[in-house]
Amino acid sequence: MPARASDRAVGRLSLYRRLLSNLLGTGVEFIYSHELAARAGMTAVQVRRDIMLVGYVGTPTKGYSVHQLIASIRHFLDAPQPEGVAMVGIGNLGRAILAYFAGQRPNLSIVAAFDVDADKVNRVTYGCRCYPMEDAARVLAENAIKTLIVAVPAGEAQRVVDSMVAAGIRGVLNFAPARLRVPASVYVEDIDMTTSLEKVAFFARRQSPAEKG
Amino acid sequence: MPARASDRAVGRLSLYRRLLSNLLGTGVEFIYSHELAARAGMTAVQVRRDIMLVGYVGTPTKGYSVHQLIASIRHFLDAPQPEGVAMVGIGNLGRAILAYFAGQRPNLSIVAAFDVDADKVNRVTYGCRCYPMEDAARVLAENAIKTLIVAVPAGEAQRVVDSMVAAGIRGVLNFAPARLRVPASVYVEDIDMTTSLEKVAFFARRQSPAEKG
Repeated sequence: MPARASDRAVGRLSLYRRLLSNLLGTGVEFIYSHELAARAGMTAVQVRRDIMLVGYVGTPTKGYSVHQLIASIRHFLDAPQPEGVAMVGIGNLGRAILAYFAGQRPNLSIVAAFDVDADKVNRVTYGCRCYPMEDAARVLAENAIKTLIVAVPAGEAQRVVDSMVAAGIRGVLNFAPARLRVPASVYVEDIDMTTSLEKVAFFARRQSPAEKG
Repeated sequence: MPARASDRAVGRLSLYRRLLSNLLGTGVEFIYSHELAARAGMTAVQVRRDIMLVGYVGTPTKGYSVHQLIASIRHFLDAPQPEGVAMVGIGNLGRAILAYFAGQRPNLSIVAAFDVDADKVNRVTYGCRCYPMEDAARVLAENAIKTLIVAVPAGEAQRVVDSMVAAGIRGVLNFAPARLRVPASVYVEDIDMTTSLEKVAFFARRQSPAEKG
């Protein structure tokens, strides 16, 4: 059942779908769990356990049907209808994120942006209109938006997220280098590109590999 | 000693530095471990343990000096000289990443890009010149580059990383939705923005919070 899926399992299912989608058009129609595991950098046991979550069972002789497994993951992960996402902060980072996601996945797309800068309001960037912050509750409700991408400076992130949660947001993808405090009903995932680059550069300078943990 | 730092500890130190840097200019000169912990969303014990790694000891009465702690983390995390980073893949994602990092941190900057597209070679994007792939070994050596950002499509990532590792790369920040196989001496960190957004949207749709794990 969806409610029992851990956040890591959901992330892995998303990855499996992407790896499987790469196989479409290559002529590969079936894949064994150990083959998918090798591509995903995991164990076959992990892959089988994750795929049990989506309720799909392959055949022992041929493995998983690529098409059917993609469809099962889609049914599990995606909303039945295309879903809108909001973004707050249209600076360098916000524009970069809009450019990246523009046209990526028809089922999940950024349909509204918010910014405090009056010059940005009502402009359309990569197909996405920018609204004033005070319209958030109305715009989120009209578009049934529950998911927010945060691309404001660190010092503004908490205040902005507080008001967006009050306006109806239930999931936050946070690019601001700040730890957000949210109610338990709100899910937060952080992407901190600067910290990640600093980590990689640090370990690239060492001779010995990093100790994971 | 640096060799004993785990990748998570290095990530946390990078975060502490960013949180401390936000305090510069606010008049706050000292901070206790529990205050820094609250800002970082961690326990004070964790913060004290991490900061022991960088060899800085605050005073029991006043806590950590913000300036001295930033300097100690810098000494631990950063190379003594400004360091160059390379990027491969100058598509939408690559340009977005260049835009984000351009001018961000003088100590770590993207100084060379690579692409297979002849039209992109020798162009300068956000101050960064694009070279042909076959010049990688020379350009990496001349600029003492050990760190690579990967922004190529998933299907090309492994091949590109193999050749870049052969050319001298020792750390990879991978934005391609592909699991990379690298020698044990090479450190890899993955950022998968699409998977992260799918996860957030999934949990935003649920009533109950995600089970972490």
